[in-house]
Amino acid sequence: MAEKKHEDRLQRIIEIERELGEIQDVDVLLERILTETRKIVNADAGSIYVVEGDKLKIKCGHNDTFLKELAPGEKLPYTSFSFPINEKQICGYVALSGKPLNIKDCYRISESKPYKFNKNTDITTDYRTKSMYTIPLKMANGNLLGILQIINAKDENGKIITFDQDAEMLIAHFASSAVQALQHAYLTANMVKRMLKMAEFRDPKETYPHIERVSSYSLEIYDRWAFNHNIPEAEIHRYRDNLKIAAKFHDVGKVGISDVILKKAFPRFTDEERNIMKGHTCIGAQLFEPPESLLDIMSQEVALHHHDRWDGGASGYPGRISLSDFSVKDGIVPITEPLSGKDIPLSARIVAVADVFDALSHKRCYKEAWTIEDAFTEIMNNSGTQFDPEVVLAFMQVKDRICSIQMAFPDEPED
Amino acid sequence: MAEKKHEDRLQRIIEIERELGEIQDVDVLLERILTETRKIVNADAGSIYVVEGDKLKIKCGHNDTFLKELAPGEKLPYTSFSFPINEKQICGYVALSGKPLNIKDCYRISESKPYKFNKNTDITTDYRTKSMYTIPLKMANGNLLGILQIINAKDENGKIITFDQDAEMLIAHFASSAVQALQHAYLTANMVKRMLKMAEFRDPKETYPHIERVSSYSLEIYDRWAFNHNIPEAEIHRYRDNLKIAAKFHDVGKVGISDVILKKAFPRFTDEERNIMKGHTCIGAQLFEPPESLLDIMSQEVALHHHDRWDGGASGYPGRISLSDFSVKDGIVPITEPLSGKDIPLSARIVAVADVFDALSHKRCYKEAWTIEDAFTEIMNNSGTQFDPEVVLAFMQVKDRICSIQMAFPDEPED
Repeated sequence: MAEKKHEDRLQRIIEIERELGEIQDVDVLLERILTETRKIVNADAGSIYVVEGDKLKIKCGHNDTFLKELAPGEKLPYTSFSFPINEKQICGYVALSGKPLNIKDCYRISESKPYKFNKNTDITTDYRTKSMYTIPLKMANGNLLGILQIINAKDENGKIITFDQDAEMLIAHFASSAVQALQHAYLTANMVKRMLKMAEFRDPKETYPHIERVSSYSLEIYDRWAFNHNIPEAEIHRYRDNLKIAAKFHDVGKVGISDVILKKAFPRFTDEERNIMKGHTCIGAQLFEPPESLLDIMSQEVALHHHDRWDGGASGYPGRISLSDFSVKDGIVPITEPLSGKDIPLSARIVAVADVFDALSHKRCYKEAWTIEDAFTEIMNNSGTQFDPEVVLAFMQVKDRICSIQMAFPDEPED
Repeated sequence: MAEKKHEDRLQRIIEIERELGEIQDVDVLLERILTETRKIVNADAGSIYVVEGDKLKIKCGHNDTFLKELAPGEKLPYTSFSFPINEKQICGYVALSGKPLNIKDCYRISESKPYKFNKNTDITTDYRTKSMYTIPLKMANGNLLGILQIINAKDENGKIITFDQDAEMLIAHFASSAVQALQHAYLTANMVKRMLKMAEFRDPKETYPHIERVSSYSLEIYDRWAFNHNIPEAEIHRYRDNLKIAAKFHDVGKVGISDVILKKAFPRFTDEERNIMKGHTCIGAQLFEPPESLLDIMSQEVALHHHDRWDGGASGYPGRISLSDFSVKDGIVPITEPLSGKDIPLSARIVAVADVFDALSHKRCYKEAWTIEDAFTEIMNNSGTQFDPEVVLAFMQVKDRICSIQMAFPDEPED
C-alpha cells in the first residue's frame, strides 16, 4: 500500500516534470513549482525566493489555511519584498550553505544554530509554523537561483507532521528538474527582455516598469475571469503562461514606426501621422508571422487588437483586418469593418483594460498621472463600450492585487 | 562485464542529456545529437533530417569512413537538400508511420515493404550501407520535429553488426530527451528570429539570408581556427554554440539608428551621419546590458567590435570604449584609442571576416555583387591589416564549405 502510494507519487512527479519543461514564463513557472512541490508532500504552506544580486526576493507565497478563509476565487495578498542574504535567517542560511535544511519544529530550534525562526508573521496572522523544509535551487554549475521553502507537511487527517526521508528524496528529485525548467525560462525571459529593450530604444515610453505592470495586471485579470467562467485547469495553465509573455509584446510594433513620428507628443499628430501610428498594431502582428507556437498566436492577437473597442466604435482599430493587406514598408492601415465583442480575442480584451489603466494612472510626456481611484472609475465608466464588461468585472474583483502590483513596479525617476 | 558496459553507457547518456539541455542553437544541437547517438551505439554514419512544411531537409550528415580519408581538421562537404515526405523512402516511411524502423541489411529489404533503399549514394561514394536504425523525433504532443537515422553499428573489432534491442532501448531513451532539448532550442531560435526581424523592419539590408550566412561562416571559421589552435573539446562545444547565435546579432544595434539616416545610401553620408551610423556597434552592445550569460557577453563583443581593425588603423571603430561613455539617446560615439590585435575579442575578429566577405559577394543598394573569387582575394589582401591573419587562414582553409553555405542561403529576389 505504502509502496503503491510511493509509485503513484513518482509517476505524478515525472508527468509534472514534463509539464514544467513546457512553461515559458519565469513567474508562472515558479508558482507552478511551488504548487506542485506542496502537493507532492501535502504541505500547507510555502514560498519561493529568488536571488537578485546579494538579496533574496520573494516571488510567491502560498498558505492553504489562509486561503480557506477567503471567498472562492480570491487570492492571498500580492507580496513583494526582499532581504539581504544572511545566515541568521533560515533562507539565508540555506542559500549560504547550499544544502537542504529539514526543521522538525521552527519553535524548537537549538540555540546553538546560527539561524533563528522569525515568529512575527505567525503572531500577526495567528498561524503556527511547525515543520519546515528549505532547499536551495542550484544549477548544475553550482550557481544559486533561489530558495524553495515548504511548511507544515500534513498526514491524511490533516495533522502536521515532519518532512520524512521519503519526502526529502521526492522533493530533491523534483527540485532538480524544476531547476532545469527554470534555467530555460530565464533564457526565454532574457530574450524577451532584449526584444522589449529594442522597442524601448525607439520609444522611451515603452519602459520596463510599464510593461511588467501591464503583463502582471493581465495575468490577474485572466485568473479571475477564468475562475468566473469555470475554465478547466489545464487550459488555465496554458493560457496564463502565454498571456504573461504575449502581454509584454502589445506595443512592440512601434519598432517599425519612423522616429520622426514616434518622438512627437500624442495630441499634436496630423491625421496622416495618427494613421501611421495606428500601424504599430499591424507591425507588431507581422513580427510574429508566420506563427510557430501558441505564444506567437497570442502575441499576434494582443498586438493586433488591443486597441479595438468592445462596442465596435469608430475609434477602435485596426478592426477586421487581414495581415496580408498591410505592408510594413508603406505603413498604411487599410480601411476596415469594425471588430467588436467576442470577435476580439480574449487576450486582447484583457490587455486593452490593463494597458489603458496603466497609461491613465501614470505620468506620460503629454499628461499627468491620474489618481488610482480615478483610473479605476474611468475603466468602469467605459465598461460595455470601450471594454468587455466581463473583463472589467474581473479587473475590479482583483483591485487590491492590481494596486499592489502598481506599487511593486514603480516608474523609474526621469533623468 | 556486459552489465558494466551497459551501466557505463547509461551513465554517459545521463551526463550528455544534461549537456544537450544547455545547448541553445538548433544546428549546433542537431550536430551534437547525431554525434552522441552514434557514439552510444558505435555507428559509422548517420544523418538528421528536420521537417520543413511537407518536406524533410537534411541538417547534418556524418560518416567516419569518409572522414578518415580526409586530412586532419577537414570536414565532409556541406550538404543542403530536401525532399517530399513519401513512404517509398525510408525516412519518409518513418515520418509517416511515426515508429522506429530497424533494418538489418539495406540491400535485403523485402519486396513487400513500401519503402526501398536508394543505392545511388553508395555507388557514387563506394560505400556499403548495411544496418540502419531510423527513429522519428516526436514531441510529447505527437508533432514530428525530424528523423534521426544511424547507419552501420560496429562491434569492438569494427565489424558491421545489427542494431540490437539494447541499442534500440538506449537510442529511444536518448532521443526522448534530445527532443526536449530541441524544443527549447527551437523556442530560442524563434525568439532570435523575432529580434532580427525587428532590426530588419528598420534596415531592410539586414535580411534573413545575410544573417544566416554570416552566422554559418563564423561557425566554420571558428571550428577550423579551434582545430588549428588545439582548443579542448569542451571549450569548443561551449564557444561554437554561443558564436552561432551571437554572430546573428552583429548589426542588431541598427534598431536604435534614426530611419532618416538608415534609409540613405552609404556613400552619401555626411561626416556627422557616418558617426551616428557607427553608433550601431555601441547600441548593439547596450542591448545585452547587463550581461546575464556567456551568450550575452559574446553578443556584446561581436556587436561592439566587429568593425575594429586588427592593425588598429583609423578606419576601425569604436576602439577602446567603455559602454558607460555612450548614450543611446545622444548616439555620439566618443573619440577613443584604437583597439588592435588580440585585444579585439576572437568572436568579433571572426565575424568581421564573415560579414565583410558576405557584403562583398552580394549585391547591396549601393554596389553590385563581387565574384566569389574576388571576394576571397579581397579578404586575403587585407589579412594582417584589417583582419586577423590566423582567422583569415582558417577562413581560406574552409573555402569549399563557405561556398556551399553561400549557395544554401541565397538572397531573396527583390520585389
